[in-house]
Amino acid sequence: MDIEQFRRAGYQAIDRICDYYISLRNRPVIPQVEPGYLRKLLPASAPTVGEDFQLIADDYQKYILPGLTHWQHPSFFAYFPAACTFESILGELYASSTSNPGFNWSVGPVCTELEAVVMDWSAQILGLDRSFYNTTEVGGGVIQATACDAALVATVAARSRYIREHPQVPMEKLILYTTTQTHSLGKKAGLILGLKVRALPVTAEDEFALRGENLEVALKEDADAGLHPFILIATVGTTSSGGVDKLDEIGVVVKENHPSVWLHVDAAWAGVALVCPEYREVCQLAAINSYADSFCTNFHKWGLIHFDASCLWVRHRTHLTDALDVTPEYLRSKRGDDGTAIDYRNWNLNLSRRFRSLKFWFVLRSRGTEGFQKHITDCIKLNDQFAQGIRKSDQFSFVAKPFLALTVFRLAPESLSHPTTPELNALNRAFYARLAARSDIAFTQTELNGVFCVRMAIGTERTVEGDIDRALAVVGEEGRIALRKWERMQAEVGLCWVP
Amino acid sequence: MDIEQFRRAGYQAIDRICDYYISLRNRPVIPQVEPGYLRKLLPASAPTVGEDFQLIADDYQKYILPGLTHWQHPSFFAYFPAACTFESILGELYASSTSNPGFNWSVGPVCTELEAVVMDWSAQILGLDRSFYNTTEVGGGVIQATACDAALVATVAARSRYIREHPQVPMEKLILYTTTQTHSLGKKAGLILGLKVRALPVTAEDEFALRGENLEVALKEDADAGLHPFILIATVGTTSSGGVDKLDEIGVVVKENHPSVWLHVDAAWAGVALVCPEYREVCQLAAINSYADSFCTNFHKWGLIHFDASCLWVRHRTHLTDALDVTPEYLRSKRGDDGTAIDYRNWNLNLSRRFRSLKFWFVLRSRGTEGFQKHITDCIKLNDQFAQGIRKSDQFSFVAKPFLALTVFRLAPESLSHPTTPELNALNRAFYARLAARSDIAFTQTELNGVFCVRMAIGTERTVEGDIDRALAVVGEEGRIALRKWERMQAEVGLCWVP
Repeated sequence: MDIEQFRRAGYQAIDRICDYYISLRNRPVIPQVEPGYLRKLLPASAPTVGEDFQLIADDYQKYILPGLTHWQHPSFFAYFPAACTFESILGELYASSTSNPGFNWSVGPVCTELEAVVMDWSAQILGLDRSFYNTTEVGGGVIQATACDAALVATVAARSRYIREHPQVPMEKLILYTTTQTHSLGKKAGLILGLKVRALPVTAEDEFALRGENLEVALKEDADAGLHPFILIATVGTTSSGGVDKLDEIGVVVKENHPSVWLHVDAAWAGVALVCPEYREVCQLAAINSYADSFCTNFHKWGLIHFDASCLWVRHRTHLTDALDVTPEYLRSKRGDDGTAIDYRNWNLNLSRRFRSLKFWFVLRSRGTEGFQKHITDCIKLNDQFAQGIRKSDQFSFVAKPFLALTVFRLAPESLSHPTTPELNALNRAFYARLAARSDIAFTQTELNGVFCVRMAIGTERTVEGDIDRALAVVGEEGRIALRKWERMQAEVGLCWVP
Repeated sequence: MDIEQFRRAGYQAIDRICDYYISLRNRPVIPQVEPGYLRKLLPASAPTVGEDFQLIADDYQKYILPGLTHWQHPSFFAYFPAACTFESILGELYASSTSNPGFNWSVGPVCTELEAVVMDWSAQILGLDRSFYNTTEVGGGVIQATACDAALVATVAARSRYIREHPQVPMEKLILYTTTQTHSLGKKAGLILGLKVRALPVTAEDEFALRGENLEVALKEDADAGLHPFILIATVGTTSSGGVDKLDEIGVVVKENHPSVWLHVDAAWAGVALVCPEYREVCQLAAINSYADSFCTNFHKWGLIHFDASCLWVRHRTHLTDALDVTPEYLRSKRGDDGTAIDYRNWNLNLSRRFRSLKFWFVLRSRGTEGFQKHITDCIKLNDQFAQGIRKSDQFSFVAKPFLALTVFRLAPESLSHPTTPELNALNRAFYARLAARSDIAFTQTELNGVFCVRMAIGTERTVEGDIDRALAVVGEEGRIALRKWERMQAEVGLCWVP
């Protein structure tokens, strides 16, 4: 493909992306395909002779688009949002056009320089303490692919620091703390590193948040058992319920009595809400700023910058470089040797890195702080609308207090007298199965301390009030059908039926 | 930004990318900026109110482009190439326009489906054994971000398998094998996992390749010392010299006498040359197919698909999923539960994943196998041209045998009588410093068993014969100046001067 062919194919791509967004609302959210559908449609091998690009571009429309789940659809309420803005797409386009692996300052100076700047801009709009800024030359921020990567990097840094302080402790005695509500990234970090993981229990009464006293008890138990907790992955805005660990209590426990324990705060989803001053208290910003050794939030979830755009800030960059720096001769450079520039490769797992800061720069500038704030508050208003509908209905109840733009609820009809948890779980599994069978709207299932429930997460820019009304109508209708079927089945098998 | 604004900004982006490629040859390869240059040019904070996108797009030209090292420049011969083709840029553009985190089959069926297909297509064009194909449902291929990720995943899988077979072995007794020429990814995997690493020595006589007998000796030594080697990261095409470990010998040692040791073959750069049948023997394809537990090559280096596009194939996918699968309730899905689809999240470190298979599909189709072969042979021809120039000169000598599209050489003028290695190293450091100070061409330094040398790696599509002539002229000229200065200095300080 030469330059003029690229120009034509590029214009067409832009036009077709416009068409996609124009038609998005009328597409199904969930594709109607079965596993293996694509292999049946494609040849078994790459062609020997190259094909005309127009054919390939047309095949994208024909074979690829119909197999996509549309995360940008206004009725996509599953998992967490995966923001995708036009400015961000343009950022990726410009960045990919020069494909620079940016592993050293010298192999792409602007890649490092811009990352250092936009991470400071981002820290500032979120209200993070100055000690997390790159300008301190002590702490700093780095873009990772995902919150999994960020947590893994923090865990490696924490382990490395702990082992330096306690060189006699064998790996088998180290233990990573999460809670039962921490994202699977905690368990995965433990699996990858081959370390013990302990998930501390949390209760519905505490709104699924870890308390300082529970942490203190666990730390004592493990010390008595000869184990060495070296990191706690705490959460602001858990996946299942939006719970916020009591960082004010936890921070005191860790910093006053157990300073060798690293505190990593994972706010992958909720962290971007810190852009609004009115949510900083509920998101425990003061405690993050006082106590966190590292903090992560994903702009690629609710933050208008598309995947991958996970931010990791640390208080001491040397904890990363001490743990991750390997510099062979062929990676040495004048700027690295004289220490005048950040070499971000030593702040993450990989050597080569995509030029991800460009999309941050585009979106932060194009929207401004006010644009971010408006996006967050718009979504929260829509969630209030949804939660209000759930609150008023006699069909549903909350399983957790609605938080920011997340509502976790279940079918719990007032018409049922004293249902047991297993009965309600069975009813809700049937209810969710009905929702999941629809292609025009998407939710996610979860379980909170044995209670099966449904998550509604709002976050795309295209969702408007009418979509929330429709979502309420859909859950209302599917809830009624699920209940009717369930009652009929119960009548048939007898009142004592328990799944 | 609304749809029509995106259309305009998108067209402009395409046009400006065309302009970039039209002007590329006339740009400096290396930017003339100092650390911290960008921060001085940009505001200290993100704007409060959003800015007009035209201003941002213009600032990209003004502030970003001048700070880039141009890896696509025809005179970029540093490190390894970072291929960037128009088809690949279009693949990224379409993929980013729908931003789908694709962690499950069900959250973006086509993301999983297409990855499974293009990894089989890629395996096939490289001549990999069928046991690496996804269609076997036993082995399979997955796209990782980098060869670092691929090696780390392989190491985690190997450790997990080893510990299952030897549950009594403590982590402190495990040891990861590399050679002294293995890429830093080996040492980094050890650092991340907190495991011992042993770099087995290789010699210039063996062309910097690991021999079976040396491996056997090391295995015996470590067994006697109570250590447990569990993985060997071998290389086809080492970074410093293009060395190829003797996989035929190594494979026999490992598979016959030490079957618990995992053999990972890192062919990050050279692996794509397997597309040409004539290079399969020299790249040890038969031994890869007979003995490797896992194999990695990066299409984002020499393979026309831009970063990130690292391929990892394994013989047994359960070794990955046994080591990496964590499935909480909110990630469960019908398709995952019933096992009818791959859940690629359990084949890598991260949960969310970019839709990277699309650019593979675009490039593999647009170029066809013949297009790939032509690109590889064109580059190798250019390297032959360069190597011929070095061979004929009385200034330079090879430090390693030229391999594929890599030549490693040093200044070793015939006019010098019996120079010592330290003397030649000092002369070559001065020579390389002159090359590194130029902005119109880029090479990389390295060291091979104490010998300082210069690497010339060819790989962009835009490099033509004239660029090679110019590169020869540049090294010739800089070599003469470096020698003249060195001789003058030697005359001044006396003949016995040793740096």
